[in-house]
Amino acid sequence: MQHFTATAIGQLERFVRRELINTLPGPKSVHLIGTASGQGITNLALFNSIMHIGANPPLLGCIFRPLTVRRHTYENIKETGFFTINTVQESYLDNAHQTAGKFPDGVSEFGACGLTPRFSDLHPAPYVAESPVQIGLRYCEEHLVATNGVILMVGEIVEIWLQDGLMDTDGVVDHGQAGTVAVSGLDAYYRTAPIKRIKTRT
Amino acid sequence: MQHFTATAIGQLERFVRRELINTLPGPKSVHLIGTASGQGITNLALFNSIMHIGANPPLLGCIFRPLTVRRHTYENIKETGFFTINTVQESYLDNAHQTAGKFPDGVSEFGACGLTPRFSDLHPAPYVAESPVQIGLRYCEEHLVATNGVILMVGEIVEIWLQDGLMDTDGVVDHGQAGTVAVSGLDAYYRTAPIKRIKTRT
Repeated sequence: MQHFTATAIGQLERFVRRELINTLPGPKSVHLIGTASGQGITNLALFNSIMHIGANPPLLGCIFRPLTVRRHTYENIKETGFFTINTVQESYLDNAHQTAGKFPDGVSEFGACGLTPRFSDLHPAPYVAESPVQIGLRYCEEHLVATNGVILMVGEIVEIWLQDGLMDTDGVVDHGQAGTVAVSGLDAYYRTAPIKRIKTRT
Repeated sequence: MQHFTATAIGQLERFVRRELINTLPGPKSVHLIGTASGQGITNLALFNSIMHIGANPPLLGCIFRPLTVRRHTYENIKETGFFTINTVQESYLDNAHQTAGKFPDGVSEFGACGLTPRFSDLHPAPYVAESPVQIGLRYCEEHLVATNGVILMVGEIVEIWLQDGLMDTDGVVDHGQAGTVAVSGLDAYYRTAPIKRIKTRT
């Protein structure tokens, strides 16, 4: 096996280290977070850090990189109190990935990347109409990771929009049928296909 | 589309709600965390919440459910200061899943589930020898999510053991070749296969 000590990791070329550490844990979920500013300018951003925090109350979390540059998603959530989490499917993967680019203030990633905003009566944050799994959340709390300045933000689910037929009678959402994509690191996308459920925990 | 308001989500049967909220965000990474108690009793536990926190310093995080029952993994990390994160491959998926069961105090999940502990000179936490991606971490910090009592724990990578040939010259780890498994919710396992890398961010 290859062995990297902390010293060896620290001596890796910067971009190689970034790729190694980012891709090391394996494919994880990738989502589009939709927000709107107080002036109603919509924003869309790609996140690979959505995590389950709890089922009752229904909570999801995500990680924001340090606020050393303007983070429209973060600012919009703090301003309006709401955001949406939308899964990414292979059919609009390229559009979704484009949202990670830089766009001028006032330009919405929806129009620039060819994705369609969809609004609910319950809150101002836009959903991605193309997504079969659209989750609306209200800001709950945040925590600053002291070691490197990233932020864990937690939101409570206020509504769910789910493509018909995706959820079975047990409540399980079929992401094989939905064609949900995963990502390793920042840009290595993976297809996911069900192996099996293992119901018994011995 | 199916629409669930917060009220509708709250009225779902408890296990249906748990499955829905757990499987909603899609397949995510699944790992075995290896620890040892101060007395050297090894422990292995399945986590689906490993997240990237930063590349420099190299940091990973994970979520612990509320400490309302004994959590050996958490206690061992607080006692010894170290833990390992090991990817799960299809070839030992059933063994890995078994570690989520309940075992008496003093019984190691390694022996009970047919997995092999492997030790490093640098710290006391056991690796899973079967895993092609073995990551050793030192405890850094933790944060209590006030809304529901879960804990975000952050660790710094102190060493990496990687099966030969898995990392390319860019630093990217090939999880297709490694056969790394993902999970949706607690028990719906997914195979992952590379689609493509999208290098350009417009």
